[in-house]
Amino acid sequence: MNYLEMVEQALDRMLPAVADRPAALSAAMRWAVEGGGKRIRPQICLAAAVAVGGMAEDALMPACGIELLHAYTLVHDDLPAMDNDTERRGKATVWTKFGEANAILAGDALQALAFETAARAPRNVAAIIGELGRRGVGVVAGQVEDLVLDRSRATGDTAAVSAAVDYVYEHKTADLFMAAACMGAWAGGGTPEQVEQLRVFALNLGLAFQYEDDLLDGDSPYSQEETGRRVRESTNAAVAALAGLPGDTTFLAALSKRLVGRKV
Amino acid sequence: MNYLEMVEQALDRMLPAVADRPAALSAAMRWAVEGGGKRIRPQICLAAAVAVGGMAEDALMPACGIELLHAYTLVHDDLPAMDNDTERRGKATVWTKFGEANAILAGDALQALAFETAARAPRNVAAIIGELGRRGVGVVAGQVEDLVLDRSRATGDTAAVSAAVDYVYEHKTADLFMAAACMGAWAGGGTPEQVEQLRVFALNLGLAFQYEDDLLDGDSPYSQEETGRRVRESTNAAVAALAGLPGDTTFLAALSKRLVGRKV
Repeated sequence: MNYLEMVEQALDRMLPAVADRPAALSAAMRWAVEGGGKRIRPQICLAAAVAVGGMAEDALMPACGIELLHAYTLVHDDLPAMDNDTERRGKATVWTKFGEANAILAGDALQALAFETAARAPRNVAAIIGELGRRGVGVVAGQVEDLVLDRSRATGDTAAVSAAVDYVYEHKTADLFMAAACMGAWAGGGTPEQVEQLRVFALNLGLAFQYEDDLLDGDSPYSQEETGRRVRESTNAAVAALAGLPGDTTFLAALSKRLVGRKV
Repeated sequence: MNYLEMVEQALDRMLPAVADRPAALSAAMRWAVEGGGKRIRPQICLAAAVAVGGMAEDALMPACGIELLHAYTLVHDDLPAMDNDTERRGKATVWTKFGEANAILAGDALQALAFETAARAPRNVAAIIGELGRRGVGVVAGQVEDLVLDRSRATGDTAAVSAAVDYVYEHKTADLFMAAACMGAWAGGGTPEQVEQLRVFALNLGLAFQYEDDLLDGDSPYSQEETGRRVRESTNAAVAALAGLPGDTTFLAALSKRLVGRKV
């Protein structure tokens, strides 16, 4: 079974059955998590456990935890008071289908379930939950600054855009990549030094991903050339951070190449 | 220093400084937690550690965790899409003061911080986080059913009210009381049997509290006599559950008497 299948099966086990009371909540939680997403973060988590010499299975519960947490952030981002999106990945968003109150609550329950699930790791639970909690605050901070950034873009305030963009890049994307990698490394029995290597890997992967994503979306403050330079620099730093780890890092190195360099 | 002072000082340490970036988030988080609340749940948590023979300090981080989680539920309950409240305890609600998007995000960050904080307990972190996560999902389930209950009350559907009310009582109030008591017992080094005693205590205390609260609010499906009978029965069951615990249970027993019997 590959990483993606492991994650899909485990997520299905951790989510409430659609008919579980209250049914509106269970159905909305499943709607938010099922049928979509490349499951990048949980796959990073499993691969990080392997990279430090552990087994992918060691990190399966933290991997589900990071995906459930990521899913809740999308449910809340889509709300009318936030991005006001009615579709995500070709499906109605949670608030469009289940109402605004149920979407707020389904997101809240997914976050609680994320932590409950990650706490089922076989070792280093305090470090794992500390990591998920800290990055879980960070991703929200990134979202708050991103709302400021959107307003600055709309008013053409380029100085404010430059001041906010690096903070948003680090927190909005890289924080959950770092949580995934560090939780996986802790769950796989990694040393603090190995966990730190995985953190540097994930930070740079997250930055490279976001530089490119914003350029593709037309939101980047950087030129195509500057974006290309930054993406190459970050990707190289990500791969370099994997050097000397005791386990197989093929998956993570391949992921860096697959995730970035899409069109730049 | 009494339990309340311990909790207030520790919460102040765990929350970001008002000026911490992003300032809108830090200020909203503090607004939600500061200056209000009887801190019942964290005090139950500290007293539970003592009841099993541990020290109150052992449970200080889980105590802050349960209060932060409780605070986020209030921030989200007050939102326009939910109860649409503009004041709480004589202060503007978070969404009224900081806007709807920031209120959603401040609640989200408080929940993440709740788990990060609880994970700093000195022992049994996996059990503690499992408890907080499970009850954190439960309290949301209670809120979903409570929205259904409000609609049933509005339409005078008494059969639907009766069907939902016990579920709501157990989950909306008792779940966080149970989390507080069980996390405190685990943090204090309690045995699984002692943790279960504290759970039964907290379930019954939560039910007694909610029976009375609803009667005072005019929302109860039960008569004054029936409410009085249920409150007495639950309070007695709560106090009885404390029998045989190795530590001092005076605080918990006194709390049961102080919290209930207010006007019934």
